[in-house]
Amino acid sequence: MEFLRDSLKQIQPLYEEKIEEAWQRIDNLTKPIGSLGTLEKIAARMAGITGNLVNSRLKKNIVIMCADNGVVEEGVSACPKDITRIVTENFTRGITGVCVFADMVQADLTVVDIGVDAEFNNTKIINKKIMRGTKNIAKGPAMEYREAVEAIEVGIAIVDELVKKGYNLLGTGEMGIANTTTSAAVLCALSNLEPDVVVGKGAGLTEEQYRHKIEVVKRALDVNKPNQNDPIDVLAKVGGLDIAGLCGCFIGAAKNRVPIVIDGFISSAAALCAVRLNPKIKDYIFPSHLSAEPGAIYMMKEIGLEPMLNLNMRLGEGSGCPFAFFIIEASQKMMRDMGSFEDANIVNNFLIDIREEKAI
Amino acid sequence: MEFLRDSLKQIQPLYEEKIEEAWQRIDNLTKPIGSLGTLEKIAARMAGITGNLVNSRLKKNIVIMCADNGVVEEGVSACPKDITRIVTENFTRGITGVCVFADMVQADLTVVDIGVDAEFNNTKIINKKIMRGTKNIAKGPAMEYREAVEAIEVGIAIVDELVKKGYNLLGTGEMGIANTTTSAAVLCALSNLEPDVVVGKGAGLTEEQYRHKIEVVKRALDVNKPNQNDPIDVLAKVGGLDIAGLCGCFIGAAKNRVPIVIDGFISSAAALCAVRLNPKIKDYIFPSHLSAEPGAIYMMKEIGLEPMLNLNMRLGEGSGCPFAFFIIEASQKMMRDMGSFEDANIVNNFLIDIREEKAI
Repeated sequence: MEFLRDSLKQIQPLYEEKIEEAWQRIDNLTKPIGSLGTLEKIAARMAGITGNLVNSRLKKNIVIMCADNGVVEEGVSACPKDITRIVTENFTRGITGVCVFADMVQADLTVVDIGVDAEFNNTKIINKKIMRGTKNIAKGPAMEYREAVEAIEVGIAIVDELVKKGYNLLGTGEMGIANTTTSAAVLCALSNLEPDVVVGKGAGLTEEQYRHKIEVVKRALDVNKPNQNDPIDVLAKVGGLDIAGLCGCFIGAAKNRVPIVIDGFISSAAALCAVRLNPKIKDYIFPSHLSAEPGAIYMMKEIGLEPMLNLNMRLGEGSGCPFAFFIIEASQKMMRDMGSFEDANIVNNFLIDIREEKAI
Repeated sequence: MEFLRDSLKQIQPLYEEKIEEAWQRIDNLTKPIGSLGTLEKIAARMAGITGNLVNSRLKKNIVIMCADNGVVEEGVSACPKDITRIVTENFTRGITGVCVFADMVQADLTVVDIGVDAEFNNTKIINKKIMRGTKNIAKGPAMEYREAVEAIEVGIAIVDELVKKGYNLLGTGEMGIANTTTSAAVLCALSNLEPDVVVGKGAGLTEEQYRHKIEVVKRALDVNKPNQNDPIDVLAKVGGLDIAGLCGCFIGAAKNRVPIVIDGFISSAAALCAVRLNPKIKDYIFPSHLSAEPGAIYMMKEIGLEPMLNLNMRLGEGSGCPFAFFIIEASQKMMRDMGSFEDANIVNNFLIDIREEKAI
């Protein structure tokens, strides 16, 4: 608990003066003011996070938290539980979605077993197992409060290690059958949204299974009565080890002044918990795509971020992060390589003209 | 006119059997059915366009049509007309937005002077000038019908050349001060939308200038009465040489069975004209981002495409294309490198289970 508490305390606001400096450069690039939209905002925020106007060499890593969820026994997933173990192994074989896309942007993967109900004999999987899967949230809490804290601290420690190794742009991914159920429960617990609105069909439920899943989330909230004002209590009662571990990653990234990317529905549940623990964390987080899971848009609204991609993806694994990495790198390339108005031979009169318009 | 007519006739539908074959492979990749959303649809369409399930080596080029627009004299742009000439030169110096992003995905640029009101002494600018800028659409037609045909044919010929050189993924960009005005007029002429709805602030107009721009578009439509059923008449009367040239690029790409990407508001006006000339062209077109220009969403609806990126960009130049290129390449990487269920050790029972769900 001490490690978590200290980490939360160490989080600082962005460097405001660097953000201003970044905007000065951005507004002097050879383009109409504001015309590169979100890329400009990313560039400004990156300067505020890192203290550098240009971050040319981004070393990327996607942390994938893998864990089983006891609620799978309620029949809330189209996939059998065994898939958690199989896919966790497959991350180390380069054949899953996230592996393929991460390769395009030279991002490394950190595969963490934080609670899979299996033993691995694979040196590429980091063993941080807290237990072999959580308990069924429809019947009681997923885990003890101290176990949730422990899972969060695993995430922080993993990020601390990655930062020591020189990684300076992180992504979040997960594997855990039934974790759209726990994520939906976390979102309901931390907002005033109802399960009917945020629950989705996950990996592919039938209508009947989908209605059942809504009931299971309702029951989990009724049985556990998570405390809306205590995200750790929410994680312990209706969350999962994967979400808690990722929540730690967001905390760790903000503590280390490293930008971190949300993938889909589950990693945004983790981001929401982190932001509720310390609102400053939000400034270190970049969204990627809008998941096809119906609750995803509400998750984004609760966090206060707008996704950059609309690809109707719902795979998880961190598979959306490489796309956001590409966009973040584009923002840095813009800062480094685009010409200024002076470079572009655009006359000073015009320069003054369009600057004045900005004030309007 | 013959060249245009022949080109339109040569356009074939997609290879349906290849699309089916692609879906068989996609649905056997190690992921829940449909979970890679738009990437899956792109992969299927790419197979239907090219006849190959995997297109590993995509050689990319962005065609940038540059031209002046007579309507600039109405004060519809925040930028002086001279910017068209300056930025056209700057495309060849590697310092504008599109240059910087194209470099990230190794895309080449083809800079075409199809009607800039200046003479260039620059071998990197292809001289296909039809005239030194169009006439003012608020007072009469932008150009003669035969000039619009000529401009379209320039676009087709440019694409024919690029395909001969081995380019197999194209993008569209433009530079032409006042071309959000002409694009809005084209959209109104080809739809039942009113100028109030589709006109935007372009590179940065004040409220008053913006209201004036709406009036100018209304006047252009009143004065010229373009024929909604003849996109060439629309281009000639209220369009521009840049839009007409790009319209030819879309036609040329479809004729050559090469995928082509829309950038923003102006290039989507060109795409809309092309699709109205031959609806089969739509299947060869991929959108990129949703431009911040308010008419952009209506343009996408008229064409019937959904943008993949939401970056609030409104720079033009083709600057959105590299982002779409990255996503299209990801779809091909998915086809080439993701494991199948068999590779992934996912048991046959489960395989059958989730296949059955797809039918529901």
